[in-house]
Amino acid sequence: MEEYKFDPSLNILYKELNNLDYIFNPKTIAIIGATDKENSVGKTLVENLVNSSFKGEIFLVNPKRDSILGQKAYPSIDKIEKKIDLAIIATPSKTVPGIIAQLEEKNVSAAIIISAGFKELGKSGKELEDQILLNKKKIRIIGPNCLGIMNPSLNLNATFAKDMPKSGNIAFISQSGALGTAVLDWSVKEKIGFSAFVSIGSMIDVDWGDLINYFGDDPNTKSILMYMENISDPRSFLSAAREVALTKPIILIKAGRTKESAHAAKSHTGALAGSDEVLDAALKRVGVLRVNTINDLFSMNEILSKQPIPKGPHLAIVTNAGGPAVIATDSLIIHGAKIATLQDSTYEKLNEFLPQAWSHNNPIDILGDATADLYHKTLKVLVEDENVEGILVILTPQFMTDATLVANKIKEFADIGRPIFAAWMGAKSVEEGRNILAASNIPDFEFPDQACRSFGYMWSYCYNMIGIYETAKVQSSIATQKKIKKQENIINEIIKKARDENWSNDKIELEVLRAKQDLFTGIIDDLETENEKNNQTIRK
Amino acid sequence: MEEYKFDPSLNILYKELNNLDYIFNPKTIAIIGATDKENSVGKTLVENLVNSSFKGEIFLVNPKRDSILGQKAYPSIDKIEKKIDLAIIATPSKTVPGIIAQLEEKNVSAAIIISAGFKELGKSGKELEDQILLNKKKIRIIGPNCLGIMNPSLNLNATFAKDMPKSGNIAFISQSGALGTAVLDWSVKEKIGFSAFVSIGSMIDVDWGDLINYFGDDPNTKSILMYMENISDPRSFLSAAREVALTKPIILIKAGRTKESAHAAKSHTGALAGSDEVLDAALKRVGVLRVNTINDLFSMNEILSKQPIPKGPHLAIVTNAGGPAVIATDSLIIHGAKIATLQDSTYEKLNEFLPQAWSHNNPIDILGDATADLYHKTLKVLVEDENVEGILVILTPQFMTDATLVANKIKEFADIGRPIFAAWMGAKSVEEGRNILAASNIPDFEFPDQACRSFGYMWSYCYNMIGIYETAKVQSSIATQKKIKKQENIINEIIKKARDENWSNDKIELEVLRAKQDLFTGIIDDLETENEKNNQTIRK
Repeated sequence: MEEYKFDPSLNILYKELNNLDYIFNPKTIAIIGATDKENSVGKTLVENLVNSSFKGEIFLVNPKRDSILGQKAYPSIDKIEKKIDLAIIATPSKTVPGIIAQLEEKNVSAAIIISAGFKELGKSGKELEDQILLNKKKIRIIGPNCLGIMNPSLNLNATFAKDMPKSGNIAFISQSGALGTAVLDWSVKEKIGFSAFVSIGSMIDVDWGDLINYFGDDPNTKSILMYMENISDPRSFLSAAREVALTKPIILIKAGRTKESAHAAKSHTGALAGSDEVLDAALKRVGVLRVNTINDLFSMNEILSKQPIPKGPHLAIVTNAGGPAVIATDSLIIHGAKIATLQDSTYEKLNEFLPQAWSHNNPIDILGDATADLYHKTLKVLVEDENVEGILVILTPQFMTDATLVANKIKEFADIGRPIFAAWMGAKSVEEGRNILAASNIPDFEFPDQACRSFGYMWSYCYNMIGIYETAKVQSSIATQKKIKKQENIINEIIKKARDENWSNDKIELEVLRAKQDLFTGIIDDLETENEKNNQTIRK
Repeated sequence: MEEYKFDPSLNILYKELNNLDYIFNPKTIAIIGATDKENSVGKTLVENLVNSSFKGEIFLVNPKRDSILGQKAYPSIDKIEKKIDLAIIATPSKTVPGIIAQLEEKNVSAAIIISAGFKELGKSGKELEDQILLNKKKIRIIGPNCLGIMNPSLNLNATFAKDMPKSGNIAFISQSGALGTAVLDWSVKEKIGFSAFVSIGSMIDVDWGDLINYFGDDPNTKSILMYMENISDPRSFLSAAREVALTKPIILIKAGRTKESAHAAKSHTGALAGSDEVLDAALKRVGVLRVNTINDLFSMNEILSKQPIPKGPHLAIVTNAGGPAVIATDSLIIHGAKIATLQDSTYEKLNEFLPQAWSHNNPIDILGDATADLYHKTLKVLVEDENVEGILVILTPQFMTDATLVANKIKEFADIGRPIFAAWMGAKSVEEGRNILAASNIPDFEFPDQACRSFGYMWSYCYNMIGIYETAKVQSSIATQKKIKKQENIINEIIKKARDENWSNDKIELEVLRAKQDLFTGIIDDLETENEKNNQTIRK
């Protein structure tokens, strides 16, 4: 099929060609290189799979043993009588090409190559990879040089990491196994749940695009978080991301922003970090939210799961104290958002009930003796102001301001179709209020500058999302620009119609998908060319 | 004395003229406006002082009552038989000028005006302030429009905030009472201790400069943290900060970075935020560390209390995983620091014992199976490399890497005369190691990007400190430049001598102080002029 070449997600047969279900939901698993040697990867893999409540069948393969840790061992994969969904390989790298041939022979659906010793070691390792690809026919492969995968909802820990996080809705894909382990360990403490964890390794076969498409369709996954060092196949990645970002947040931390870190990334995986500017532009256009810190990866995920994205950058700040609002304003501007200009009618309404000394401006300082009722009335007015595209409510512990009461009063605004945040400042005196806000899905921050930072990120994400529907404004060849121009009108028509007729997300998606096929082919081609050119420059 | 005009801290009589001790260590306190009215500031003040274990004597003043909450009340201040160190005023603003006259009459040493209703209300309020200043002779005044002060080591809570934080070494000065309360509340949870808390209010008398000088001399104070909205008297502030920053970190969050927030600050305290660029330059020159978030205020304080400031921006990163080091490198560069270029001899030494596949570069990736011994050997080599001006040790939970063992092995490097940080990534598997690091004064971070951000701030602080000794490079008049040039040589001589002869901090301070008097007068004058000019522009 012609479409398959430029946009796998549009191929309706694609799902059936895709074996990733055998990776994340296997019924039968073979561990090749299973062993009981202390402190070995092979032993940990066996322990993680056998001693768990995972329901599938596990087969151990080791030509030198009859049994391992009390379980039967097979001399080779072909001696296993059952069909194998997933093989996990932890043998020396030079044996792997042969094993892949055997797996194809036995009709195994998928494999995870844990073993290291491939292209990260240079030419000889690269040759082994080429050999694997030569032997590979239908099997899908994760790795090599990776930690493996987890599916907490099935208690499936196909990694050599010790602990599994709890089940949840985040698919987390990490190009660094060690970073992945550390984040998983941390997430247990933070009570963050995952639908899947993937250590993606060298991406000899399954790559960003495959995984994004897979998790895009996975009903257990509500958002996709990624740690990326190199993009590998930009066509596949961008095409999948653009598709999935319409329905699920994709949040990415991409290392290699600077020359120095690109250098570090190169020496560590053999990967080239690529030209950051080109990538940045591409990410924006396909609706991926890029963050700079590991913390932001998870905090932005939480926020996007609780609140809608803003339609614009204009925030209203309601506060019972001036100082925190000043800090918040600084942070808002620094992170690329704006202070909303209130409508005249809003001023009139606020003047009716606010104390005379209120700030008469946004930030709306309703003063230190603000009651829950005053907060409530103020929010009610702001919600009617179309200039207000998001609201931050700041509360400092004060005499007349009961943090719990205010939280209870304003929780009805949790779902106003515009993002709302809170900064219940302090600790003990606001604790109960904070719990109420958390339970009401109003993201709450210790300090208002953090809330504004998040709104800035949110707006940048929103801006990216608009970019999916609207046209690309990258530097591109005149031919491409003509291509874009032509399709642009069609897409604009769709957006207009969608807005006027209040289309469902599904309907928008379908219509846009139909129209955008051609449009994006050209852009992605240009990007690839530019990326390659930049990579060549870096190599020099 | 002539010097008093441009540098109060150089006046040896200054301390005796200074009544701030009567504010922070009073033996007798009068509460003017004491009451038992529910939910009143006056009642809370009484409760906070009377129901505490504060050792001083408290006198209540209220012309309409004989007793308040079971304690005798005096009709007026002059009826109290004892000498009063500190009066706390919580009466309506229009009564305050008269009260100040009475306090002078009675020879009260200091006053805190809690009452609001002064210049923040416009012309009539400003006139009340003028009247206070007219009536004031020797008394030192904090406020008006403030929350009050605390001295936790004496259990002295002279504010209307409910809880007092624990005793410690931080003096925290806040120009926003509400922000102050919120931070104090939060600090109780975070177990942060304070030597003093000051809500500085409108600064009719006691200002930044007075407080910095006072806490500079206070043996219980090891660092000064400030939330500032407007600088008020730049001469006094800069002179004091320059002085004290030589021995104690001064860390500041200054709101009003942006046009929008300056506007917000203006509407809230009547203060003009001033030209941020001018202030920024001035802060750098006097050695004040400016941070952007409330969190950074405290995290940087912790770091500066544990580790020395770096001599330069060059960091070495040791890691057992590539990915986190790549993220760290990005963060390092973004925050203005640099990757250290290792000496050839360092490479030779590292090659002797590191596994062949180590990164052969900084970040120094000693690979996933790094033992405690390998970490220890690597640090031993790095410490000998003069190009390395700081070290970050990253550990991810891995098979062969015991987080506890590594922490124990490397804790001997806590005090190498260069800053050392750790990022023990994860949670459960590194918890014990983290505790060991914390106990050894090696700042530890959840993620390495946070460590690099802190190193960047540290370097910026260090850079500012160098600025104190070296010359100012601000745009200044030719006359000023000549002045500077003349003194510059003298100061350079001192620095050179100090380095060669390894002077003590006290000795450096003394010599520099002697020399710099004239030098800074001119610069501060220029700054004031420029600041005023900018303020005028803003006013227009």
